[in-house]
Amino acid sequence: MEYQPLTTETILDYLKTRPALAQILPPGEDYEIKEVGDGNLNLVFFIQSKSNPQHTLVVKQALPYLRVVGEDWPLTRDRVIYETEALMLHNKYAPGLAPQVYDHDYEMSTLMMENLNRHEIMRKPLVARVKFPRFAEDISTFLANTLFYTSDLYLKGEEKKALQERFMNPHLRKLQEDFVYTNPFMESPENNWNPLVDDLVQEVRSDGDLKERVAWLKEGYMNHAQSLIHADLHTGSIMLNQEETRVIDPEFAFVGPAGYDVAAVLQNLMLNYASHYAHTPDAAQRADYQGWLLDTIKEIWQKFAQKFEALWLKDGKGDLMPAAYWDYRGGEEAFAEFRRQYLAAIFRDVVGIAGTKALRRMMGIVSVWDISSIEDPEKRAVAERYAINVGRRWIKEMDEVKTIDQFTDVMREEAEKVRV
Amino acid sequence: MEYQPLTTETILDYLKTRPALAQILPPGEDYEIKEVGDGNLNLVFFIQSKSNPQHTLVVKQALPYLRVVGEDWPLTRDRVIYETEALMLHNKYAPGLAPQVYDHDYEMSTLMMENLNRHEIMRKPLVARVKFPRFAEDISTFLANTLFYTSDLYLKGEEKKALQERFMNPHLRKLQEDFVYTNPFMESPENNWNPLVDDLVQEVRSDGDLKERVAWLKEGYMNHAQSLIHADLHTGSIMLNQEETRVIDPEFAFVGPAGYDVAAVLQNLMLNYASHYAHTPDAAQRADYQGWLLDTIKEIWQKFAQKFEALWLKDGKGDLMPAAYWDYRGGEEAFAEFRRQYLAAIFRDVVGIAGTKALRRMMGIVSVWDISSIEDPEKRAVAERYAINVGRRWIKEMDEVKTIDQFTDVMREEAEKVRV
Repeated sequence: MEYQPLTTETILDYLKTRPALAQILPPGEDYEIKEVGDGNLNLVFFIQSKSNPQHTLVVKQALPYLRVVGEDWPLTRDRVIYETEALMLHNKYAPGLAPQVYDHDYEMSTLMMENLNRHEIMRKPLVARVKFPRFAEDISTFLANTLFYTSDLYLKGEEKKALQERFMNPHLRKLQEDFVYTNPFMESPENNWNPLVDDLVQEVRSDGDLKERVAWLKEGYMNHAQSLIHADLHTGSIMLNQEETRVIDPEFAFVGPAGYDVAAVLQNLMLNYASHYAHTPDAAQRADYQGWLLDTIKEIWQKFAQKFEALWLKDGKGDLMPAAYWDYRGGEEAFAEFRRQYLAAIFRDVVGIAGTKALRRMMGIVSVWDISSIEDPEKRAVAERYAINVGRRWIKEMDEVKTIDQFTDVMREEAEKVRV
Repeated sequence: MEYQPLTTETILDYLKTRPALAQILPPGEDYEIKEVGDGNLNLVFFIQSKSNPQHTLVVKQALPYLRVVGEDWPLTRDRVIYETEALMLHNKYAPGLAPQVYDHDYEMSTLMMENLNRHEIMRKPLVARVKFPRFAEDISTFLANTLFYTSDLYLKGEEKKALQERFMNPHLRKLQEDFVYTNPFMESPENNWNPLVDDLVQEVRSDGDLKERVAWLKEGYMNHAQSLIHADLHTGSIMLNQEETRVIDPEFAFVGPAGYDVAAVLQNLMLNYASHYAHTPDAAQRADYQGWLLDTIKEIWQKFAQKFEALWLKDGKGDLMPAAYWDYRGGEEAFAEFRRQYLAAIFRDVVGIAGTKALRRMMGIVSVWDISSIEDPEKRAVAERYAINVGRRWIKEMDEVKTIDQFTDVMREEAEKVRV
């Protein structure tokens, strides 16, 4: 079917032409159709049977333009292909931790998938101090599995190159290269920051040591083809409830540094931690929730590292080094040391990338809702000042911060300086 | 034209169908045709007019199999595409330092190029102690230009990804991953070494620290997409004379670590240095030529680094970091420091890769002619022992060897231990 944007009027007829959907949308039922996307990049439809609520799905369709402030920017629709292909790999390697894909149609740029109507986006409940007891366990599994099974520790050399070729994703990568690693750290018209933290923003933008490190981190983002990464794994890309976790929206996926996704999660929790200086005036409540966030940050890294290494020992049949390479007297120790070094290198990336991503949210094109929703600029500045101080220390101390305890110590030490 | 292997009988008719060759092979002249390839991977033909010797070219045609020891391995013919595309980029960025491409035909897997009949392959004259006064100047230009203009220092993000996609080259990369970085360092049936240096070979294969470092270097080879590299730049891929230098045979080209090509050249000169313990019994002659090799190694690195940085300052319009990123008070110093760090990181790779490549020649599937041509095993062992000692020190000391003087000091210190 030739590409055309779907509407609530045309979508049901379109879906009926798709054999793969016969089970999930049986004919003869009456369906409710809602268009819920913000319409500036993708159309998103919810379809649900009125008689059988489990007969439901979400349809995402890429638009050929980006509609912002009344203007249309032409845009390739490739992103729905990247999202679909990444979701299928997530389903394969981390089953149950990403929405199920029912069908896809590259001509129409559509993706038909599980309706996560029992889950909510993580960002708002984090602001409301909801604790998620399964989250560290689930997200660490998602990270360990997707990052291990798409690396050279599991894949053969030629499989890895095919993966890389399939996820070249040049346009969306360029967006992140600019808006995460570059523009926030220099003068650029779209940058946006609270005038009350202008002193810190100017310090960051003229800190040579920090900027050299960010340039290196960008080099790694552009060129270190380690694992297939989600590349936009903030808490707005996580839907969950008390029992289940799902990672959504991987349209930025490409083969990049494994630490990027881990950093994205950890620094979003730090930004949420910062936001409670405003959202949670009660000191005891705040301490309790910030304590949970710190514990969660630690638990995510620790479980990620354990699971990643366990996968390596179980399924490490990739081409980076065959088992025979370590098969000699003393080889077991050398292999153990190489695994330790490999995880330490990922951790070093995590520290630097977490700092970079935190800073870009405080001085780039877009903040995070956790913090931007603080209306009083004075109160918001407290959270922002904390986040900037932590972020820049993570970058500048990335060669010294070698353990997750040292990583959270930075958060704790900066917290001691906060006056609310 | 549908693919078929050419013969000395059919080639002239084929070439006459190519409009791009009308100038170089005008009709009405009588041509001499020679097939000079070893016929196991490619056919190579020399065509020369009997009346106008400047009417000459080389035709290379990929065969769809690899013929070794009586057996045929099926093989894709992609390599001639990689070679052609790489040569065209070398012509563009390092004009005069690679053979000119006259025409190419991907259907027939043919490449029509300049006949380098005034140049010779570098390996043999190096054994005969011929000095090449232009070599350091030329090869450093080739390296600086090809590695700079294919990096993110010059290219835009999307151009770089397109380059990477064009040079995915999974099959030939896999060969190098196995035969440079893996198999020589473990037990593998094709490995080949002189029993007289078995003690050293076993030491290397069971040296945990060295093997962890080689594993990291392999990770960088597989995943660090820094610049388009030739990836097989040994002295057998260099044709030259006293005035001119040409780099040939870039069919292994892909986007990898910039240090790889530099390392390939330097370590080949080191292996040639080693070979003179046997080839040049006269101590004064040997000292003189080894001195020239040491000077050449130094000069290549120094000129490469100077030229690379000069290109960066002149043409550094790539996306790694825009000029505006360094445009603040103190930014000039930070940018200078980042350039220093960038070249230091390339140099660190050079040291480790040079060591790895030297070792693989001494204990892997294939030596270098400089050394394999030493018939007396005892004399050959002297050269091999030297090369292994230098190679493993370069790997193990890659974090300490930070200057080209320290790099050649390793060669000099090991030379003092040699008894011939």
